[in-house]
Amino acid sequence: MSALDAGATIGILGGGQLGRMLASAAAQLGFDVSIYCPEVDCPAARVAASHYRGEYADAAALLDWASGCDVVTYEFENVPVAAAEALIAAGNEVRPGAQPLQVSQDRLVEKAFLRECGIDTADFAEVNTAGDIAGPLAEFGGQGILKTRRDGYDGKGQVRLETGNDFEAAHKALAGAPCILEAMVPFEREVSVIIARDAVGDTLCYDLPRNEHANGILKRSVVPSGLDEAVTKRAEQAAEALVHAMEYVGVLALEFFVLEDGTLLANEFAPRVHNSGHWTPEACATGQFEQHVRAVAGWPLGPVTRYHDVEMLNLLGEEALVPPEVLSADGVLTLYGKRDAKPGRKMGHLVRRRS
Amino acid sequence: MSALDAGATIGILGGGQLGRMLASAAAQLGFDVSIYCPEVDCPAARVAASHYRGEYADAAALLDWASGCDVVTYEFENVPVAAAEALIAAGNEVRPGAQPLQVSQDRLVEKAFLRECGIDTADFAEVNTAGDIAGPLAEFGGQGILKTRRDGYDGKGQVRLETGNDFEAAHKALAGAPCILEAMVPFEREVSVIIARDAVGDTLCYDLPRNEHANGILKRSVVPSGLDEAVTKRAEQAAEALVHAMEYVGVLALEFFVLEDGTLLANEFAPRVHNSGHWTPEACATGQFEQHVRAVAGWPLGPVTRYHDVEMLNLLGEEALVPPEVLSADGVLTLYGKRDAKPGRKMGHLVRRRS
Repeated sequence: MSALDAGATIGILGGGQLGRMLASAAAQLGFDVSIYCPEVDCPAARVAASHYRGEYADAAALLDWASGCDVVTYEFENVPVAAAEALIAAGNEVRPGAQPLQVSQDRLVEKAFLRECGIDTADFAEVNTAGDIAGPLAEFGGQGILKTRRDGYDGKGQVRLETGNDFEAAHKALAGAPCILEAMVPFEREVSVIIARDAVGDTLCYDLPRNEHANGILKRSVVPSGLDEAVTKRAEQAAEALVHAMEYVGVLALEFFVLEDGTLLANEFAPRVHNSGHWTPEACATGQFEQHVRAVAGWPLGPVTRYHDVEMLNLLGEEALVPPEVLSADGVLTLYGKRDAKPGRKMGHLVRRRS
Repeated sequence: MSALDAGATIGILGGGQLGRMLASAAAQLGFDVSIYCPEVDCPAARVAASHYRGEYADAAALLDWASGCDVVTYEFENVPVAAAEALIAAGNEVRPGAQPLQVSQDRLVEKAFLRECGIDTADFAEVNTAGDIAGPLAEFGGQGILKTRRDGYDGKGQVRLETGNDFEAAHKALAGAPCILEAMVPFEREVSVIIARDAVGDTLCYDLPRNEHANGILKRSVVPSGLDEAVTKRAEQAAEALVHAMEYVGVLALEFFVLEDGTLLANEFAPRVHNSGHWTPEACATGQFEQHVRAVAGWPLGPVTRYHDVEMLNLLGEEALVPPEVLSADGVLTLYGKRDAKPGRKMGHLVRRRS
């Protein structure tokens, strides 16, 4: 695929806030955007040239939609692998491809893949029945987190365990789904690498944000992270190894736990633009949304120069019910156009300069 | 009208690039946007939640459309005054109102209004027939510009005149339309004031850009303008007088000729966001598009702090046929999504940091 010209159509699978911000960035570069998602009304469709309503599992609808797109990308990692594969088999360019979906959708596959790439992770074990828990939990020092292998996000689908807990009940609370048991990590901070790789294999990393979570949901990202240069370099090298291993095209986020001694343990990656990179459009020469669009369009990456220190604060649930003109007095406001401020739901974010 | 909440709908009359950039800014703040314009496919509609296709003179269609909007604004100054008045008469909030259209659509009315506001302009005279030209032209030193009172933009609808020219032919070249003859101004530079006024009457001016035109079309805006502080202050005060006189709500641009001795002569104003302010989203705490949206939404204005020196270059006609990935290597690229790169047509712009 040669570089897309202005006026080409970029198809995005998914209609949430990431799709919305991708669509706006694509429009600024002169592209038309078509959103594919099952919802009637979604944040991304309201800023896109067209909206095709269909189920992700409906291969015929997907192919019909993609026939009007010059390239297809996705804004969330739970697009069925089969959907991406059907599109590719029919000759559509799908960036970043099917493998990143296949790997990231299953925590066990993901952790194993990270290790294959030479990237350290916390210890983990496969759990299919409650009986699989006691052995590895003891090995992990008697503490761990049981997570469903699939479909968990923002702290959902996981439960903390220690020796003596009722493992049957814990596994039942996760609907008895195939799980992974992960060792607890005594981390000192969390950081992420937001990396972009273009179609010819060049990569660029944004300055690493330090991420603060509450109840498993990202609350705040701060840049600079305060991390040693050497540790930062190792995190970037890990992200580079990961994207090259998948011949990834686009923006990807790799999350790390950082231990007191500088040890980095990868937690997970997201094959898409990422919440912890929402400060980049305000603080950098090229924001992560434009960067992803550039990569999938076959353009060279834009510079990731950061102009100032910055923090990004998520607005969750009822925090977004403060009148927006009040919220916006406190930084650059982005609201996602979601109709319903459910507790914990990501409704928007604020970006603040720190220097 | 109280301040609009996230999820409210902002109606925009006009579907060009200014509407497109307004719509994207409104979406970032959580608003839905509805575009009203006669074209089937237009740059703004492709980034808006909805598009109502109708003629500006069709009052019934306008009212039908506006019934779905919480506030109505416009992105170009040739919306018929009657259309704005019909909307207002039916109880719709139209910001910045009908008067700015009425005044700015007629160069003679506009110049007279500027003078009523205490703002100096070049000498001018009303021209209805070719016979009206010789007298004032002699008074103006034998040189002048004949312009149609209505519908001129980007250097169209005007012709330079000097003593001895064929006035009949000149007026005929402008279709014999009602005209204004303006004295030539030996200006040293051109600047504009991009001013915002909110619904409670507070105003803020962006740092003045110096504007360079070629063939009557803006080519480049540079900030800072290099103008003396005292002259700058006078230009800002003139803009403040103008917006207060109209109880204007939104962003307005007032263009000035600056003479060698610092004399300021207002040329014209645009009751809308302006091409010479296209650097503000990249260089300032609040861009002009967000600022206009904030004002028409009844929000307080955002800070206009400029973070760095900057220049904005228009991409005209075939200049935009350079592959966009090449163009974007040279600054922050914005393309308007226009299908056809006619000569001189504004296709996009580049914003470059200068410090």
